[in-house]
Amino acid sequence: MESLAVALAALLIAGPVTAAEKLPPLTLSGQGSFFVGGKDIRSPATTSRATGPTDGTIMTAQVYVHYQIPAKAGKRKAITFIHGCCLTGKTWETTPDGRMGWDEYMLRQNYPVYVIDQAWRGRSAIDPTSLNSVKLGREKAESLPTVNAASHEGAWTLFRFGTKYPEPNPGLQFPLEAQAELWKQMVPDWSGTLGPANPTVPALAELADKIDGTVLISHSQSGIFPFQAAALSRKGIAGIVAIEPAACPAATDAMTPYANLPILVMFGDFLAGTSWGETLKKCQAFAQAANAAGGKVEVVALPDVGFHGNSHMLMQDKNSLDVAKWLAKWIDTRVR
Amino acid sequence: MESLAVALAALLIAGPVTAAEKLPPLTLSGQGSFFVGGKDIRSPATTSRATGPTDGTIMTAQVYVHYQIPAKAGKRKAITFIHGCCLTGKTWETTPDGRMGWDEYMLRQNYPVYVIDQAWRGRSAIDPTSLNSVKLGREKAESLPTVNAASHEGAWTLFRFGTKYPEPNPGLQFPLEAQAELWKQMVPDWSGTLGPANPTVPALAELADKIDGTVLISHSQSGIFPFQAAALSRKGIAGIVAIEPAACPAATDAMTPYANLPILVMFGDFLAGTSWGETLKKCQAFAQAANAAGGKVEVVALPDVGFHGNSHMLMQDKNSLDVAKWLAKWIDTRVR
Repeated sequence: MESLAVALAALLIAGPVTAAEKLPPLTLSGQGSFFVGGKDIRSPATTSRATGPTDGTIMTAQVYVHYQIPAKAGKRKAITFIHGCCLTGKTWETTPDGRMGWDEYMLRQNYPVYVIDQAWRGRSAIDPTSLNSVKLGREKAESLPTVNAASHEGAWTLFRFGTKYPEPNPGLQFPLEAQAELWKQMVPDWSGTLGPANPTVPALAELADKIDGTVLISHSQSGIFPFQAAALSRKGIAGIVAIEPAACPAATDAMTPYANLPILVMFGDFLAGTSWGETLKKCQAFAQAANAAGGKVEVVALPDVGFHGNSHMLMQDKNSLDVAKWLAKWIDTRVR
Repeated sequence: MESLAVALAALLIAGPVTAAEKLPPLTLSGQGSFFVGGKDIRSPATTSRATGPTDGTIMTAQVYVHYQIPAKAGKRKAITFIHGCCLTGKTWETTPDGRMGWDEYMLRQNYPVYVIDQAWRGRSAIDPTSLNSVKLGREKAESLPTVNAASHEGAWTLFRFGTKYPEPNPGLQFPLEAQAELWKQMVPDWSGTLGPANPTVPALAELADKIDGTVLISHSQSGIFPFQAAALSRKGIAGIVAIEPAACPAATDAMTPYANLPILVMFGDFLAGTSWGETLKKCQAFAQAANAAGGKVEVVALPDVGFHGNSHMLMQDKNSLDVAKWLAKWIDTRVR
């Protein structure tokens, strides 16, 4: 009984060290990480070092997955978070201003949580062979991959912090005082090199099957991925939440993959006159087509449900946990 | 009392889903992530996309840190895990054959655990401006960064799985049946581009100061980093554990940074006739010089303390948790 008594005491006494630690303890039944997808390739240019052999076999296209299972998960479906352009799984962790991320919020609502790094991003390796071939003088510079690091100036308008850098939109919820911490999260994006057949998509289908039921939550550049994964296989996909997707399926696409699947498309504020406003309209057209074919698609702009001032990075905005609460309720209600 | 009863029940009933979940629940007082280091640079080549502006400001040289604090941490020093070449923080998580990683093992011994991705690796962004400048036709291919992906064939001998691919060393502890899961962990290494002034080093000094006391545990290519960080500032560095470091400080270096600091250098098995055997000897010479100047350096080859068959990836070998137990005892005994 001694260890139980100690464990019970640990539940009662939480020493506050950081903001997150002022909360009650977080009790997990398990956590860990693994990969989905991935294939071996043989290349003459695995390295561009001047000495030693340059050929060999390397693994490419795999997708890193980190997971945590709350002790009280019960029958709740898992949530899988998929980051957007120029970002990694860090997107969903501690916010730039040091508050709890959506990953931990959902854990504390007793959802198992899976966070991925897209293929060719973060802990999921890029394929360096094209770069190495040019460095080694075997290929021309034109064959180099296209790589995009979002600049502060470019992200400012794209993320709707304001219409002109560095002026903020009035009432903006993004914690601009901590913007440097967002810039530190950003990593170069090689997905332009991957084309429409991004290996993250079949990896998501594999993951959903493996964990036997999950709501796929995408953001921005990854917005379309859960829809594409559902078109490959519905097995294990319990719902889709697309946060400010760069694209929805076209209204003219086949709607069979989405029949009777709970789908939420969520946008923030300040949409008027932006490309995001146009995307919202296209997503509404998709929703209409899908719902006419037995779909259950809802499109929500946050101001319509009482949240104002949200940027494209709404999972990091000052009201992020209020939005998360609304989202958890949506999932609770719609996904069985 | 109801929530306490439920929590207590959760401590008693752990539903076995994966190997990790057969263990008692893991109770944390907090977790999250942040960055140390990082600086803004202005570049004309933040992107190599053909359309739109290519100039702007981006953040480079930052280091991603993920942490978990056990509920019963008490006065234990934090442990900071620093991965090696061609790997990320994933090194310390779930092993290729699905067992608990050293990160969770140390958490369960009530150490706060910090896991980093080195600068230019994993969730810590590379600087793409040199690559983009060549792609855009503004620089010559020679100026491209040197990038190294360790091939399976190369890693096989370097990691001492065997002396010739794909033949294993007799009694090897690495779980070769799960080798594909190690290959999936590997990412290209740009550190050859960074030279001796790797930004991870000052970032580690900053981290040790910020969290006010930590044992820095490095591996392989990062082996020298904790020593270099201690030379910058001892503030917050409570001890150093170098797992198979690519290099120790030279015996002729100034020994002041290491005076009275608990330091362990640990190597695995199969060292005879390898470059690692040579490195072990140099580390022993360093230890002798440091200890003559008031140091507390111990150099251990695992066979000398009863562990046999360990590879360079000893934190993933089949006996990894036995080695971790030995290491935790070393830390308990030596670090106050």
